Amino acid sequence: MPKFRRIATEEAWSTPEVAELLRQVSRGLSRSLDLPIVRGIYDNPAGDPPLLKKLLDTADMRLRTMDENNVDMHLLALTSPGVQMFTSREAVRLAEVANDRLAEVVAAHPDRFAWLASFAPQDPAAAVKEIHRARTELGANGFMVNSHTDGEYLDEEKFWPILEALNDLRAPLYIHPRAVPEGFDSALRAYGIETAIWGYGVETGTHAVRLIMSGVFDRFPDLKIVIGHMGEGVPFWLWRMDRMADPHRRRPAHRPPYRMSEKPSFYFKRNFAITTSGMESVPALKYSIEVLGDENVMWAIDYPYQDMPDAVQFLDDADIPDESKAKIYSGNAERIFGIAPN
Amino acid sequence: MPKFRRIATEEAWSTPEVAELLRQVSRGLSRSLDLPIVRGIYDNPAGDPPLLKKLLDTADMRLRTMDENNVDMHLLALTSPGVQMFTSREAVRLAEVANDRLAEVVAAHPDRFAWLASFAPQDPAAAVKEIHRARTELGANGFMVNSHTDGEYLDEEKFWPILEALNDLRAPLYIHPRAVPEGFDSALRAYGIETAIWGYGVETGTHAVRLIMSGVFDRFPDLKIVIGHMGEGVPFWLWRMDRMADPHRRRPAHRPPYRMSEKPSFYFKRNFAITTSGMESVPALKYSIEVLGDENVMWAIDYPYQDMPDAVQFLDDADIPDESKAKIYSGNAERIFGIAPN
Repeated sequence: MPKFRRIATEEAWSTPEVAELLRQVSRGLSRSLDLPIVRGIYDNPAGDPPLLKKLLDTADMRLRTMDENNVDMHLLALTSPGVQMFTSREAVRLAEVANDRLAEVVAAHPDRFAWLASFAPQDPAAAVKEIHRARTELGANGFMVNSHTDGEYLDEEKFWPILEALNDLRAPLYIHPRAVPEGFDSALRAYGIETAIWGYGVETGTHAVRLIMSGVFDRFPDLKIVIGHMGEGVPFWLWRMDRMADPHRRRPAHRPPYRMSEKPSFYFKRNFAITTSGMESVPALKYSIEVLGDENVMWAIDYPYQDMPDAVQFLDDADIPDESKAKIYSGNAERIFGIAPN
Repeated sequence: MPKFRRIATEEAWSTPEVAELLRQVSRGLSRSLDLPIVRGIYDNPAGDPPLLKKLLDTADMRLRTMDENNVDMHLLALTSPGVQMFTSREAVRLAEVANDRLAEVVAAHPDRFAWLASFAPQDPAAAVKEIHRARTELGANGFMVNSHTDGEYLDEEKFWPILEALNDLRAPLYIHPRAVPEGFDSALRAYGIETAIWGYGVETGTHAVRLIMSGVFDRFPDLKIVIGHMGEGVPFWLWRMDRMADPHRRRPAHRPPYRMSEKPSFYFKRNFAITTSGMESVPALKYSIEVLGDENVMWAIDYPYQDMPDAVQFLDDADIPDESKAKIYSGNAERIFGIAPN
């Protein structure tokens, strides 16, 4: 096996200011389906739980585990739900704080870390300002948002200034899962399926489908969206989406007019890339390479929620060409996130 | 190419009594996401539209089109949403009417048609009675339900008598899509994505995941569920579901106790089969065969919503072994639905 450079592209991090406010916020809420996991991590009465310790840690345990597993870089981002459960004012402030902290972490180890910055969709004008600051002053490699904000999705017109800024700066946006909002939750309130078992994919896949169908990629053709977990189910649906929503065919009478000019798969291949986070299935990887091309798939661990050794072994052992493996391990991440090649 | 027997396993049919009541019901509702398509088909002011004509037709156009495309049999079923938008009393009555009518249609062409009977989940006791009647007196090859009923899913305890009857009679249940219910709809109210574009899979896949996670397959181990559209996205999620919900591993502290005793994929392979309806993607077919086995995949057209020639060409041309193709075209349907071999 060649010596691959391994860049993991969906790696979770947090900072005490955000962790503390999440703990407070989780005590004041009752209905949100994000609560079980937020309480489990940030409001654990047993004290400092291992998961939170790993999230807050950067140079110590994380780098050691990376070394042990021959992982060259982590693309770090403030972990879900980021600043999106806070009031607009708190969210704007904490996005800035988190970005400043994370920029410092990366500056201390520029060969081991790259990063995605946060912004507060609650205040689109402030978000645009922070996107410019984080990209041009702090050098962020891209941005991360945790799906919906108060039940709203980025295809809605109020968020277009955010998409425009990302488009103009050629800054990729990673859409990470969180639990579905109220109103999109009833069938998922059972057996814990609102989580990574099923619901996160429903939420984030729906976000991707909304963006595609809304036509925003005609308006912002350079916008690049990254989604994890082998594409949140969307790659498996592409044939059916193309069949059911092809602007070049006659629209069924009971359907609303198309907003986009091309078939869904056109945008998914041009404006999206997917990562392997938390989805270490070789058949799903090979399927995704076949329908999307090996230039649209990136490796990710989802540390500390998933284990590093398993993620490395998954791609090391996958029976795909070394050339594809090199792209998935690092070549595509270098291109999409602007990480300097070795 | 060998001469395959072609049994199409998700073929839509309707009867004037149901069509008329759907037309009436659709005028009295406003919020249901089933409305656009129900109105489009049953309440089209332009008169008798081609789709409704094809649904109501049996011996005439349908058999001719089957002959033209070398399709041997249709497994017919009352088309979505079946009787599930009616009041309990109307639903019970119309399930009986539809089953009587469809049994007659099949009796007139036993070599060309098999069928799935309807029941009214609104009244579980009446449903159990009708399941027994349709199976033992009318000879139904199985049953079809159109996902949720008034926002409730079959894993809920009130429906267990239905699952028990199906289990005891060894009668397969086809869970067909309909639009998501209120409370599970907010994010899907945009760009027509509540339909086959995306939402039907969210709804029906969620139904399948709920059944698996609820543990009903430990209670009813012979229950066989069939889902269409290449498994409604579930096959692509199996690795992640197994990773996130494995009763043999330690449960994360913030998760509810497991209700089932085995991993999700165990039940999906033992208690489910999928069909290719409306999903003519060779990569998706090959992926599904790889993770589920060729004994769990059946061919379907979804006539008249989808075209027969495309569906035949899809499987005729797929680069899979003829042995697998024979199982998918008819062998598995003969076994699962009790259709006599040629």
